Amino acid sequence: MRLKDLGERALLGKLAPIGYPPGAPLPPGDDAGGVWVGEVAWLLKTDGFLYREVALLGMGPFEVGFRGVAATASDLLCKMGRPLGFTLGLFLPPDLEEAFVLELVKGAAEAAGRLGAVLLGGDTNAGEEVALTVSGFAQAEVPLPRRALPGDLLYLAGDRWGRTGAAIQAHYQARDLGAYPEIREAAFYPLPRLELLSLKGLLRGGLDSSDGLAETLWQLSEQGVRVDLEALPLYPDVLAFAGDEALAHELVLYGGEEFEAVLAVPPEQEAQVLARAKGAGLPLFRAGQVSEGEGVYFLGTPVKRRGYVHF
Amino acid sequence: MRLKDLGERALLGKLAPIGYPPGAPLPPGDDAGGVWVGEVAWLLKTDGFLYREVALLGMGPFEVGFRGVAATASDLLCKMGRPLGFTLGLFLPPDLEEAFVLELVKGAAEAAGRLGAVLLGGDTNAGEEVALTVSGFAQAEVPLPRRALPGDLLYLAGDRWGRTGAAIQAHYQARDLGAYPEIREAAFYPLPRLELLSLKGLLRGGLDSSDGLAETLWQLSEQGVRVDLEALPLYPDVLAFAGDEALAHELVLYGGEEFEAVLAVPPEQEAQVLARAKGAGLPLFRAGQVSEGEGVYFLGTPVKRRGYVHF
Repeated sequence: MRLKDLGERALLGKLAPIGYPPGAPLPPGDDAGGVWVGEVAWLLKTDGFLYREVALLGMGPFEVGFRGVAATASDLLCKMGRPLGFTLGLFLPPDLEEAFVLELVKGAAEAAGRLGAVLLGGDTNAGEEVALTVSGFAQAEVPLPRRALPGDLLYLAGDRWGRTGAAIQAHYQARDLGAYPEIREAAFYPLPRLELLSLKGLLRGGLDSSDGLAETLWQLSEQGVRVDLEALPLYPDVLAFAGDEALAHELVLYGGEEFEAVLAVPPEQEAQVLARAKGAGLPLFRAGQVSEGEGVYFLGTPVKRRGYVHF
Repeated sequence: MRLKDLGERALLGKLAPIGYPPGAPLPPGDDAGGVWVGEVAWLLKTDGFLYREVALLGMGPFEVGFRGVAATASDLLCKMGRPLGFTLGLFLPPDLEEAFVLELVKGAAEAAGRLGAVLLGGDTNAGEEVALTVSGFAQAEVPLPRRALPGDLLYLAGDRWGRTGAAIQAHYQARDLGAYPEIREAAFYPLPRLELLSLKGLLRGGLDSSDGLAETLWQLSEQGVRVDLEALPLYPDVLAFAGDEALAHELVLYGGEEFEAVLAVPPEQEAQVLARAKGAGLPLFRAGQVSEGEGVYFLGTPVKRRGYVHF
């Protein structure tokens, strides 16, 4: 079967178990892979993308390099891994200007540095168009899988919900973001949150949201639970950008590229989670809860599954 | 300046220091990067390539996946790093058959498994042609930089010298390798050598040879030394394939894709290095020595610098 007929999710489902070790800190197909070394989980993650697919209007190579490290770091941080270092795999047309590549790598270094991590080199190859992979490794004392149990509360970390979706929509509509500085910042410099690590040991599960919140919640529900959204974060600028509440909800549910965390919190840990997050300065939004069953619902209405896939 | 005018080596020289940490276990631009975690160096390496550039006549996706992990693992092992896990970054045309991708990943898993390591997932993207990056992480108690001091002896590890060069030449000449099983094996399944780790703590320096022996020795000489080759390993099958000794020497010097190690051995450690290598079953060939000065020579004649570059 051809990849375009199989679909990316089905392909990844078939690839993930190949060569993956039994007894690993995280199951195959999770946001990152890992091995135990003594009592510490060492996580490794690679994320790749084409430059033209992620460079929104106004973004340059610096922002795309930044975004690349952010994407990989977000996967590691959602697993409670503290990122240590990143490498880049670059495919570059020979006609490309040197300055472009330097800016790309400087953007990657900026994101790594703001996460307390470093760049550890990489590799360059000639390619038809600019494409990148970013790999990162991290240490996790209590690695956090994609998981939720009935009764768990659903929290959204960070404040990029709907904002990155708005920026992507602005790109396709060639709409200027001058009046929306926080939307622009969220999409151009989506720094994942080291503050997540303050919740170590308190959570049931965590997922990186990069294909959109709805898709992420559907992936959570595939663990064998029903997800009920009771509220969505709605920032004034996202509401103003969207024009009305229903359109703003669409941006929150189907935006993508947030590089924020979806967290399953056991009810008995909620008070401590909120206290620690407050102490660390991590925004947390209580979005709903998890119960027995299947599917994803928003105020009782089914949430359609639609997210970005490459095939 | 455009990349094709700048050249790949110059580009890598400019990129390597960006974001690279001071006091790291290995300097920027070495075969792998790393950070200290306690008293252990954690190394990270990414290597990328286009499928069509490395798939020799008769190789399929399994062999190319195997070769990808081998390339990254070789860089890690030459630094005395024990590889733990690998991830893949895949760019795939949507028209590609699923079976092709499964074979590619199975080949990668085979190489990882034969090195006592695992696959830890990865990422897929649509791309115009099949391209891969392979990332790997490793632990090194005594990380080994690219380095040599005057007086050091030069050893070549492994037995693929000239063989991979012969296979590449056979590919471009559409010559059948049926009569040369060891040449075929060396090129199709170039497993790096875990046995190198038996030399931990005894060596001055090590370099991965993947752009050809001559280029590798030139990189060594850039550390501020003169390299004198006194002999080259010449296997009967390589000699038979090449037709005469001079042509066989060309294959050894300019072959590439060996994924073998070039080692600088302090003379006072030579006896113990040989004993340990013998005990571990690691082939070692004494090729020459290092002295003050610059350049690379074979029996007094300058060795031309010519290796594979992408730009």
